[in-house]
This record gives sequence, structure tokens and C-alpha cells, in this order.
Amino acid sequence: MKWEDIQEAYCGSMGKAVYFPGHQICGAMGRTGVAITNVENASASGSSAFREAYLAIASGSCDVALAMGVDKKALAPPKEGEKADDQPAQGKPLRFSPVMLFAQMAKNHMQKYGTTVDQLAKVSVKSHFNASHNPYAQFQKAVTLEEVHAARMVSDPLTVLHCCPIGDGAAAAILCAKKVAGKYTDKLCPTVIGSLLRSVLPDGDPTFALTQHTAKLLYEKTGTGPEDLDLIELHDAFTIEEILYLEALGLCEPGQGGRLIDEGVTSLTGKHPINSSGGLLSMGHPIGPTGVGQIAEILWQMRRECGKRQVEKEVNLAMAHMVGAGGVCALHLLKK
Amino acid sequence: MKWEDIQEAYCGSMGKAVYFPGHQICGAMGRTGVAITNVENASASGSSAFREAYLAIASGSCDVALAMGVDKKALAPPKEGEKADDQPAQGKPLRFSPVMLFAQMAKNHMQKYGTTVDQLAKVSVKSHFNASHNPYAQFQKAVTLEEVHAARMVSDPLTVLHCCPIGDGAAAAILCAKKVAGKYTDKLCPTVIGSLLRSVLPDGDPTFALTQHTAKLLYEKTGTGPEDLDLIELHDAFTIEEILYLEALGLCEPGQGGRLIDEGVTSLTGKHPINSSGGLLSMGHPIGPTGVGQIAEILWQMRRECGKRQVEKEVNLAMAHMVGAGGVCALHLLKK
Repeated sequence: MKWEDIQEAYCGSMGKAVYFPGHQICGAMGRTGVAITNVENASASGSSAFREAYLAIASGSCDVALAMGVDKKALAPPKEGEKADDQPAQGKPLRFSPVMLFAQMAKNHMQKYGTTVDQLAKVSVKSHFNASHNPYAQFQKAVTLEEVHAARMVSDPLTVLHCCPIGDGAAAAILCAKKVAGKYTDKLCPTVIGSLLRSVLPDGDPTFALTQHTAKLLYEKTGTGPEDLDLIELHDAFTIEEILYLEALGLCEPGQGGRLIDEGVTSLTGKHPINSSGGLLSMGHPIGPTGVGQIAEILWQMRRECGKRQVEKEVNLAMAHMVGAGGVCALHLLKK
Repeated sequence: MKWEDIQEAYCGSMGKAVYFPGHQICGAMGRTGVAITNVENASASGSSAFREAYLAIASGSCDVALAMGVDKKALAPPKEGEKADDQPAQGKPLRFSPVMLFAQMAKNHMQKYGTTVDQLAKVSVKSHFNASHNPYAQFQKAVTLEEVHAARMVSDPLTVLHCCPIGDGAAAAILCAKKVAGKYTDKLCPTVIGSLLRSVLPDGDPTFALTQHTAKLLYEKTGTGPEDLDLIELHDAFTIEEILYLEALGLCEPGQGGRLIDEGVTSLTGKHPINSSGGLLSMGHPIGPTGVGQIAEILWQMRRECGKRQVEKEVNLAMAHMVGAGGVCALHLLKK
């Protein structure tokens, strides 16, 4: 495939530091006249870029589209003298941060359903193990349960190993109309059978409730169900999220997420492997690229090119899930 | 139509001050779960939002989509002590600004083709006249040729009345699949027969050459030509642009744009009225909203609801044209 074959390009980014990132990237690749649009949907920026590329092809506007995600330190680390935890510095107002929200959700889940800190920590252990076999991961070192527990506390009960890192990154995926895909590769190419975005719901939180709502619509539209999912790449910025979304996606009843972690259902050898890439926790979460990176992982898993992090079962149907600040959930369903 | 009928929403904005503007707006309207995506393509941000809404419907993803544009002081005016003209302050490096680029393009056009300052100024006079009858315009006062000449010089030969203002603004358009439009209105609704975006070309500038290239593709795709255009809303951030794009769109040979202005071809009573709204020069250019505002003007003109700024001839086919920094040209063709 030549660069000239790309007809439309979408770039997802929330980094306010880079203006018109799509144009900068495409300009550097060579000026072909390709149609470029920059999209921004917080953590779901990359997923939205992928979705717009999909819609451009589905609409007949083009046959080949590029979805990119890029960000450079979209979220800056705490500055010297600022505290990263949930305790305000003396005399300063509390600075809201997502970790406080998810720490509270973890506490609620523990209180309501008896979910344990061990179950939360096991999500981190699995994630780091998977990432230890992913050459594209930000963290490529496995961790033990003890290490997760003993790590620096950020917001109780979440130590730093329960939290995704920040960083720079980039990811890209090329989408083709079915009729032309064979021109470019004879390798397996998954088919996008569902692409759904939903935002700001009347009630409920923009993570659990919105994921539940969007998944229900997607299953209806595609005639699938949670039991069909052979792989899920999901938004695990914090360990509690894997447990929450397991439930929101319908893989178990509310409150049963922790049990599924204990049973290894979401590990590489389980029935519903989650985040074989290492996910946001360990592959990383540079924001713009994250949702596009999920798609790449699904492709590689379906092609069984993942080496030691290869999912044991055959991956026939896989889901990419992202939520984003502002209140957005993006789901993509890919079929082998 | 109820707010709940909107299925997808796109918000074009380049204002770095507002995060996730689409989500903020849709949240305030009432949380329905509508799918929201924020897009950013410089001056063409609104046009890109309109285009994505169009593609979402064309792809079959939804039947009703909202395209919005919004910005709050996307470009700040020169700060106290900064000079707005093309002369650097003593000892300070020259600060590049778009007006310098277009002033140079005006000079080049004058030298190469004999275009006059009078012809440039007439664009401003026409624009302000049209806007004087537009209740949505930022400037609603007609100006004389003498006033344009005598206004404060910004970058020779462009006085401030050759330049569009900055400002806050918002615009919205609702797009429907043909099969459902009748459910919501019995008024005339134009059909989008072409939607094209092109970016960064191999050679040539991102304004004239890119417009020429994109227009050629659009005419080919839609079986139309410049002679068919009954109304054009185009990107006239500076007066020279109306002359340049007249030529780039093929309404005359290169160098003949000034003559068309003299002959009144682009006035409300002319063969190819341009910017009946007042355009960027007089309706205003708040960035994100501008491209969506063009669509509204076309709709009103086709419905003959424009009062004293109503185009004389019947508007059967109209074009909305935007260019944007970063190198993008968006064209939409609407048919009665």
C-alpha cells in the first residue's frame, strides 16, 4: 500500500499542545491532498477517529481511510510541590482528579458487594503480566500481588500500580472497504460489525451506566451478546474499571466482577480475556492513541501474532471499549 | 422536532478555551444519550462538523444528526502594547499573522493582473451592504468605498475594512435522511449533493490551489460546473480572497476576478452572488460556527426568506466554501 492510497484521514487527539495534529502528520508523510479531520473526545479521541474513518467508508465517501491517534503529555504530571494524592496541600483547595472518583467507586463496590482489594490488585497483576510480553507496552515488567499492595498509595484503596500512567504515544489503523481490502493484504482482516458512540445519559454515571446502555444497543444492533466476546480491550485507567465494565458489558451480574477476576475468566487462558495488550494500566494511556491501539491488539490477536501474550482461545469476536471525560462511550465490535 | 430526535451530534470548534464543547452543549440541552463528537479543523471546523453529520447519515448510522459550531474568542486580539500591523515593534521579531500573507497575495495579484485597490474595496462594500440586512451579522452597517480606503491600514493594501473581525458565536444545522425529513417540516429543505474535504496538496498554496483542486473534484463527482452556482458562501477573511476563490472555483479565468467585482457579478442581483450573508468580513468569523452559518444562509436564500438581502435570481444550486489553517478546504454543494 502506498501513502497515496489513503483517501481520508482522521486524527484523534486531546493534547492541547499540538494544533491540527492530523495535518502535521499527513504533511510530514507527503502532501497528497488526503482529506484530514481532527477529532477530540477525551480518552475516546482515538476511538472516535476510528469511528469516523469507518463512517466515511460506510457512507461511500471513500474506500480507504486512516485512523490515527496521537498525544504528547495530554495530562501533565503533578508539578514540583503539587501533591498527586487526594489530600489537599495545606491551605489549598482540593484539586479534583479522576483517581479520586474511581477510588470512591472502588470503595462503594467493596462495601456493596464485598469486592476485595486483592481482587482489584489481581487486575493489575494480570495487566502487567500481559504487558510484559508486549513490545509496545509502556511497562514491560510483571508485578506481584505484594508489589501492587506495597506500592505508593495514591487514593485509598488505589496504589500507584492500580493507576494507568501518562505518556506520549501514537497509533494508527487503516480501514478499507471490503471490496478493496484484498488488493492490499492477504492476511486476515477483521470486519467491523458494529461501531457505536453514546454520550451524556439522563441518569447514572458516564462510565458504568453509559457503558451498560451503549453495550445493550450494540448487542441489539449486531445480534450478539456478551457471551460471544472472545477478547475485550477495555478502558482500565484504574483497576476497579475492569470489574465495573465486566458487569456493565453483561459478562456477569452486578457485583460478580471480582469473582470473575478470582476465577481467571479475564486472563489470557480464560473464557473472556480482557486487555491482552496490558490495557491502559500497563500498555499505557497516552489518550489520543489508546483507542486505536486497542484495534491493533485485536487485529494481532485474531491473526495469532501475539507470541507469549497470545489469547489461548480462538478470537472470533472482539470488542474495543473506551469511555471519556465529558461523558462518552465508544464501542467497536470486530469479527474475524 | 424534539431534542430527543437527534441521534448524532458533531461540534466544530477550535477554541482551546472550551473543552468538549459538544458535550457541554448537549449536556445543557438535556441528557439523551445522543452520540457526540468534537471536531477541529481550524476555520473549517464547522464545515467539518457538518460533513461528519452528513457522513453519519449517509453511512446509515443514523437518520437525524446535528452539526454545531461554537467558539469563544478563538483568536485573541492583539494585547495592549502589541502592534496589529505588519511592522515589528522595535527590537522584537516579526509576529506572523494571516493578514500579512493575504496582503502579499493581494500585492501579487495587483502586480500580475492589474487588480486594483478599488476592486478589493468593492468586495468590502458589497459584504457590508449585504450584512446591513442580516440580523445575525456582527456588522450591520453599510460602508462606502471611501470609508474602506480611509480606514486604519493593517497590512498594505488591506485596511481594517478589508479584514474579517473576530468574536464569539454559535451556529447549528440539523441534517436528516431524505426519508424522514418530511416528518419534521413541510418547508423546503435543500439536498446535500456533494461534500468534499481535501487537505495538504503536493504543490501550491493551501488556499487558491487547494480550492481549485477540491472544486474540480467536486464538479466531477456531482456533474456540475461553476456556471451552475446560483449562490456561493465563501471564505472571505480578507477581501482579496473573494477575488482569488472566484478564480479558483472556475467562475472566471485567473486574473479576471477583479473584473467580475466591477461588473457586479457577485452582488445580490448578479449572476453568481457571493456571501449574501455578509460573509466572514461582515457576518463575522467566530471560527467554529462560520461554516455552519454558511449552510443556514443557503437554506434561507433557497426558501427566499432573506428580506432585503434576498438574492434576486432563484437559488437552485449553492456552494459553501471554507479553507482553514493547517491546509484544508471543505466544499458543500446544496441543491434545492
